[in-house]
Amino acid sequence: MKYCSNCGAEVAWTIPEGEDRHRFFCEQCKVIHYTNPRVVAGAIPVQDGKILLCRRAIEPRHGKWTLPAGYLENGESVEDCARRESLEEACAIMDNLQPYSLLNISYINQVYMIYRAHLINDDYRPGIESLEVQLFSPNALPWEDLAFPVIRKVLEMYCHDLRTEHFPFREINILPGNKEAS
Amino acid sequence: MKYCSNCGAEVAWTIPEGEDRHRFFCEQCKVIHYTNPRVVAGAIPVQDGKILLCRRAIEPRHGKWTLPAGYLENGESVEDCARRESLEEACAIMDNLQPYSLLNISYINQVYMIYRAHLINDDYRPGIESLEVQLFSPNALPWEDLAFPVIRKVLEMYCHDLRTEHFPFREINILPGNKEAS
Repeated sequence: MKYCSNCGAEVAWTIPEGEDRHRFFCEQCKVIHYTNPRVVAGAIPVQDGKILLCRRAIEPRHGKWTLPAGYLENGESVEDCARRESLEEACAIMDNLQPYSLLNISYINQVYMIYRAHLINDDYRPGIESLEVQLFSPNALPWEDLAFPVIRKVLEMYCHDLRTEHFPFREINILPGNKEAS
Repeated sequence: MKYCSNCGAEVAWTIPEGEDRHRFFCEQCKVIHYTNPRVVAGAIPVQDGKILLCRRAIEPRHGKWTLPAGYLENGESVEDCARRESLEEACAIMDNLQPYSLLNISYINQVYMIYRAHLINDDYRPGIESLEVQLFSPNALPWEDLAFPVIRKVLEMYCHDLRTEHFPFREINILPGNKEAS
């Protein structure tokens, strides 16, 4: 942020009066411009025990596999966002969405909310942001070709929980360098 | 948003090429300015079965009771935000935080994440944004003087779940006009 979105003047990176940390602040119109983490909602769409993954047609990580997920938009619920992204990226229709995990990626200011879900349609297919979509058995996931550490972590947890069929809601912190802390 | 935060030119409210909805778009430097919902993290701090509430010293709803909660900042986890807000608003120190509910307030672009938590210190006291803080028995909560519909909904759920001591994680949609949908 270089210019004030309210008045167009240059902004300062400073601690405004009454604040406890640096903010973008406009000294002309006195507006504080808060910047906050973004929410990403996604799903693990499951059909007959298999997990639907999408191979990315866009950067970053073009050609790598991921779960359908994307940024929460204004005016929608987190669950609706997970549904919309699955429809857009994989033409996947889901029901019985269950909140499964909250993953903080604080170093890039993202919060992931991932649902377990039943994939109910058979005509899933690539959306515009996917090269292909495919159902994978949990014992045949493309571990070497996953797009992001957060997706690896979610799939590891899911495969772990599958053994006991117990899927507790968890909050996990994803750390830089592919390390994770719970 | 009136001006581009990247170059200072006036922005347009339009559907940029490749987008599926209206965005603030700078036709001079071609930057799309996405705006997304904000996350609010908060807690139900419990000690000896009683719930810690804060009476607001700030607008909106000055003088009304609320749970400690506030906006997620860049660089912090959702749980850490709930801890920080409880410390700032009530000098409350908590442990054993358990994710309890996700509440969409889509019509104001907010997502609340509320934890159940043990309040472990006895010297809780008002922070700068609180007039007073007080422990309330679940059967003596100040229902008529709560600050926000989302806080009422969380406390209603908590009191309901107390009867069975079973606290499932839920996602709830808060609708305008104090209606709720789950």
